[in-house]
Amino acid sequence: MAVPLQSPSPCDNKMSCDSLWWGADLVTLRDGRYSIIENGAIAVKDGKILWIGPYAQCPDFDAAQRTDFGGGIITPGFIDCHTHLVFGGDRSGEFEQRLNGVSYADIAAQGGGILSTVNATREATQQQLIDQAAFRLQPLLAEGVTCVEIKSGYGLSVESELKMLQAIRALGSTQQVEVKATCLAAHAIPPEYQGRADDYIDLICETLLPQVAAASLADAVDAFCEHLAFSPQQVERVFNKAKSLGLPVKLHAEQLSALHGSTLAARHAALSADHLEYATESDVQAMAASGTVAVLLPGAYYLLRETQCPPIALFRRHGVAMALASDANPGTSPALSLRLMLNMACTLFRMTPEEALAGITYHGAKALGLQQTHGSLEINKVADFVHWPLARPAELVYWLGGQLPCTVIYRGEIRL
Amino acid sequence: MAVPLQSPSPCDNKMSCDSLWWGADLVTLRDGRYSIIENGAIAVKDGKILWIGPYAQCPDFDAAQRTDFGGGIITPGFIDCHTHLVFGGDRSGEFEQRLNGVSYADIAAQGGGILSTVNATREATQQQLIDQAAFRLQPLLAEGVTCVEIKSGYGLSVESELKMLQAIRALGSTQQVEVKATCLAAHAIPPEYQGRADDYIDLICETLLPQVAAASLADAVDAFCEHLAFSPQQVERVFNKAKSLGLPVKLHAEQLSALHGSTLAARHAALSADHLEYATESDVQAMAASGTVAVLLPGAYYLLRETQCPPIALFRRHGVAMALASDANPGTSPALSLRLMLNMACTLFRMTPEEALAGITYHGAKALGLQQTHGSLEINKVADFVHWPLARPAELVYWLGGQLPCTVIYRGEIRL
Ligand SMILES: [Zn+2]
Ligand SMILES: [Zn+2]
Repeated sequence: MAVPLQSPSPCDNKMSCDSLWWGADLVTLRDGRYSIIENGAIAVKDGKILWIGPYAQCPDFDAAQRTDFGGGIITPGFIDCHTHLVFGGDRSGEFEQRLNGVSYADIAAQGGGILSTVNATREATQQQLIDQAAFRLQPLLAEGVTCVEIKSGYGLSVESELKMLQAIRALGSTQQVEVKATCLAAHAIPPEYQGRADDYIDLICETLLPQVAAASLADAVDAFCEHLAFSPQQVERVFNKAKSLGLPVKLHAEQLSALHGSTLAARHAALSADHLEYATESDVQAMAASGTVAVLLPGAYYLLRETQCPPIALFRRHGVAMALASDANPGTSPALSLRLMLNMACTLFRMTPEEALAGITYHGAKALGLQQTHGSLEINKVADFVHWPLARPAELVYWLGGQLPCTVIYRGEIRL
Repeated sequence: MAVPLQSPSPCDNKMSCDSLWWGADLVTLRDGRYSIIENGAIAVKDGKILWIGPYAQCPDFDAAQRTDFGGGIITPGFIDCHTHLVFGGDRSGEFEQRLNGVSYADIAAQGGGILSTVNATREATQQQLIDQAAFRLQPLLAEGVTCVEIKSGYGLSVESELKMLQAIRALGSTQQVEVKATCLAAHAIPPEYQGRADDYIDLICETLLPQVAAASLADAVDAFCEHLAFSPQQVERVFNKAKSLGLPVKLHAEQLSALHGSTLAARHAALSADHLEYATESDVQAMAASGTVAVLLPGAYYLLRETQCPPIALFRRHGVAMALASDANPGTSPALSLRLMLNMACTLFRMTPEEALAGITYHGAKALGLQQTHGSLEINKVADFVHWPLARPAELVYWLGGQLPCTVIYRGEIRL
């Protein structure tokens, strides 16, 4: 087995790799910075990066496959670290009704809103959930996503949450993308538990999560901490149970009000706290201390026409890593593009293009606990990367919408 | 030669057409409404729609090519009626500098802003302009655009404006898309004419426009009426000259302030007035009287983080047709998606999905003077249409970003 080289070291005996790629500038995103290697080369073996550096210093590899891109840039594969891509039905009808002036109350009265998605998800077969999610996944994959997190949370019963998680696992085994599954059973109070949220938390903790853990159906546990969903106390019960089962946690926090869910998340060493429009400085300090990533979701901010931005300056000042995600979901962000989120993060939140790109690579990986294996072009990391016929990485942020041409290399091979 | 049928009329003698398409709901956009024909059929002959109606009423055509879509919807081809797709260089570097805190003054001092595009455009060869624009055009075509307007206006000299218009004509003859060319020489005051805007207007009227007309290089003439560009009086000189040469006019008006350019445009029976954030009720009434289309550009509104919406309610009240376009340009809207503009028009301007879709079909055609031949699925119109594996037209607006799969039929044939 080849020992990965720690630095360029030309040698007389030819080393072998599976594939060698060169002829483009490498935007490595090492440490979350562009860290560009001009005219670089990447050698891949066993789906991992065996060597990376300037082409001029590249050892004389024996490679079965050799690709000269002849220009352009290479970035790490994109990571969408917060999605709800698995759901039944869609809410385009309701979207249209609202724009035609139908009130929220009337839409709710006719069974609209999140409960319509819950009903459609419960009614759908597992295969239907898989097929519909695969359709929505294609545009993300086409623009360079090589790793995606998908949450449950529209089943809200033991059997339908398990069905969602099984659908997510099936996507991971059938689609050419790394899929991380998150159990978000504590997403909303199910219709059967109205006024009895604590009983539903009992069900999650005593029945659902043990089954999820036993069947290895989730890589993390999430919850929605908000007045209209679950209190910090209820969330904490879920977190304690997750911890006892060895599952890391994340939290939807501070989207619409300041309940200090992000401080709670930090206390539980959460991988991430997500949304965060109303996070305070003490929340940010707690997240900095625990290394919890701030996952920012500009698609929902845009669609809800919010005006309270997440506190970018505080995240910067306290050194909290910022990730970006599509939040793809049927209600508040039916987003099928992660690259669009780059532009929205810069236009709406005034992040820099470098921060935005790090948010869907280096810091996106950290939000999923994948910082050792994903998110940057470095020796020993998984060989997920994307070639773009562009001159500089800021173009990925600058061009507004539209499918830019790209070549995706997934686990060391071109993904078709 | 087959006489187009005015209504479904099954007959015993088989009629012939070149191709027959069925198995989808037809969103015809007739009169700018969805006007859906469920389970419809379209017969095409000589690149035009020979027959359209419910499949059950379709005559028994003799067709060389027969396609059953087996579900989904068909819309007219999309029309992007306002773009600046031909330009040299891009401004992603400047975009990034601004987000990193470099001031507008410093960027201007180093030659940034529109003048950097003017310089790059003047330096580019015609072939370079064509190649770069073709690259930007691809994402638009991939999502269903079959007709695009492209403006000059970054040359600002006789030879470089002619070079741009020739590049636009070349795109029209080499790309699988209907291209309309607009001369926007009065886009900005050239560096050589600072403080002498009237002299530049002389150059446009006396030298450039006669050459443009003689060589049939433009289908319309446009100008930018704004404090930092040209006054209504200067614009009027351009309009009078265009009229004398038989060219229709359009105008960038009321984007940043209320100069009543749109009223001026209406007085000259302009095809469209574009932007219109600051249009007043009297402007809107003038546009209604002249049948001038309001072209709304939500991409620029979004990127400039404007807060003054165009007066949608006034356009509705007075019956002014609203079109939507990408405004694709290197400075204020590097937009490569027309479908994203649908979502932005609804989210930011609160247009309805039906209005938005009419804006890139039926009313987009009118903004280009193509209402007799394009913009809806009707007998005798050009057979430009798009099949989408979707359940309802509002999904085209609802899904935020991402390339939805589609099959584009351009002039009666599948565009690859
Ligand atoms: Zn979410
Ligand atoms: Zn424009």
